[in-house]
Amino acid sequence: MLKLYWADDDCLLPGDRGLAYGDGLFETIRVNGDSAPLLVYHLDRLMRDAGRLGIRLSRPELESAVAHAMKRYGAIHGISHWVLKLVVTRGSGGRGYRPAADVSPHLYLFHSVLPPLPPETGVMVDFSRVPLTVNPLLSGIKSLNRLEQVMAAREMKDPTFELLMTNAAGHVVEGTRTNLFLHGPDGWRTPPAASLAVSGVMRRKVIECLLAAGEPFRECELQVEDLLGRECQGLYLTNSVLGVVPVRNLAGLDLPVGNRLATICDPHKRPD
Amino acid sequence: MLKLYWADDDCLLPGDRGLAYGDGLFETIRVNGDSAPLLVYHLDRLMRDAGRLGIRLSRPELESAVAHAMKRYGAIHGISHWVLKLVVTRGSGGRGYRPAADVSPHLYLFHSVLPPLPPETGVMVDFSRVPLTVNPLLSGIKSLNRLEQVMAAREMKDPTFELLMTNAAGHVVEGTRTNLFLHGPDGWRTPPAASLAVSGVMRRKVIECLLAAGEPFRECELQVEDLLGRECQGLYLTNSVLGVVPVRNLAGLDLPVGNRLATICDPHKRPD
Repeated sequence: MLKLYWADDDCLLPGDRGLAYGDGLFETIRVNGDSAPLLVYHLDRLMRDAGRLGIRLSRPELESAVAHAMKRYGAIHGISHWVLKLVVTRGSGGRGYRPAADVSPHLYLFHSVLPPLPPETGVMVDFSRVPLTVNPLLSGIKSLNRLEQVMAAREMKDPTFELLMTNAAGHVVEGTRTNLFLHGPDGWRTPPAASLAVSGVMRRKVIECLLAAGEPFRECELQVEDLLGRECQGLYLTNSVLGVVPVRNLAGLDLPVGNRLATICDPHKRPD
Repeated sequence: MLKLYWADDDCLLPGDRGLAYGDGLFETIRVNGDSAPLLVYHLDRLMRDAGRLGIRLSRPELESAVAHAMKRYGAIHGISHWVLKLVVTRGSGGRGYRPAADVSPHLYLFHSVLPPLPPETGVMVDFSRVPLTVNPLLSGIKSLNRLEQVMAAREMKDPTFELLMTNAAGHVVEGTRTNLFLHGPDGWRTPPAASLAVSGVMRRKVIECLLAAGEPFRECELQVEDLLGRECQGLYLTNSVLGVVPVRNLAGLDLPVGNRLATICDPHKRPD
């Protein structure tokens, strides 16, 4: 049955460009009791990418709304960890794709329980058949234009936890909802920021931690063979809600799993 | 001022994937009094592309909703021409990008007055600096993922009517909201369907009319030089609301303007 929403009824947001064109951004922020360890990184990214899209956001207004949300929704979740989702849209109106000069942004605030967390022993991962295409102007931006990720995720069947996407050049770039770090004989590698559809907050955290820990690290294009070949000493997925997730099997191939990356980098990991 | 929408208030559509990910499609249908000349083509495209995205739509339900909208909104607009916009989303819910198996679509119905129509003497057009990227899986689909077109349209300054977008290969593919037809010594050319971000309903109509009129026509990749060079005998933009729009000036170069294409192809053009 098709559910109908009439534009002239009260309960719609007529002309919100976020619905019309995916003209906006989002953040999914893990809240652990009364603290959100990566909150500043999430707000940094939201402000930076709003700037790239020409959406005028005020950081103090944003922080105030978030503080309000942490109280309002925190009261519902109590001591449980939960997820705060922010959706910022450019607002309403304008002549078609072209925004009005005085357009003013909307902020939607959602909350949900934590998704099931993957085991520390690692997850099963495969390759997606959906190609990843990244507009250079929009690289790394967690915009509302996520149809490619939807089409890739539709193909996922339990127990597969994630599908890795490759670009037209054949490089393995990222998962549908994760970034990736490869461990090899000469240290850690992750695909370059400019190649990414989404430049993760957890990815930023992991890079900072690796550098602070003196681990060899570089941004580098990765081929399928790098992940499946003998020199692969481990593959790790990152996501700001799930943390650092080891891959124990990739496309049928068992991979070594260690806990070093999670130990030095995962802000959600309870200390032993 | 940031306008806030709380997910637990009544007036939001929590979890509509159209807002969250641009997970849906739209059609903008011109209604001329009590008839919509291209309605069948719009519904054909909506049904075909919903199928490509795996969104289960029933054509009878869709037609029934449209008929209802024509009455409901037609009563508001009277004899004036107006625009009916349909937005179909995959619905709500699911685990992140991955839709739930029982997800059920939403249809939003909007109406608006006609935009200002361009003069028959033609319009001024330029090239966009925003590259066009098209995922082969999604080529031609008028999905809600339109952030590239928004970013291109932001650069438009009156009196420029349209900006033409090129892809990574340097081919001129389409305008932000139009397809294009080039007239040359050996007939009509338009970029191939597989290269398009949006495969227009008016584009389909024009191709059918050209073929029916026995005009030489082929799908062909176009370079900037094809449009600006000596062999260009005219450039025409197509859009199902605006019809066939001649380009009188492209990036500072005057182009010849004829009325043949509009005469044989434009369903909105009043007969002389």
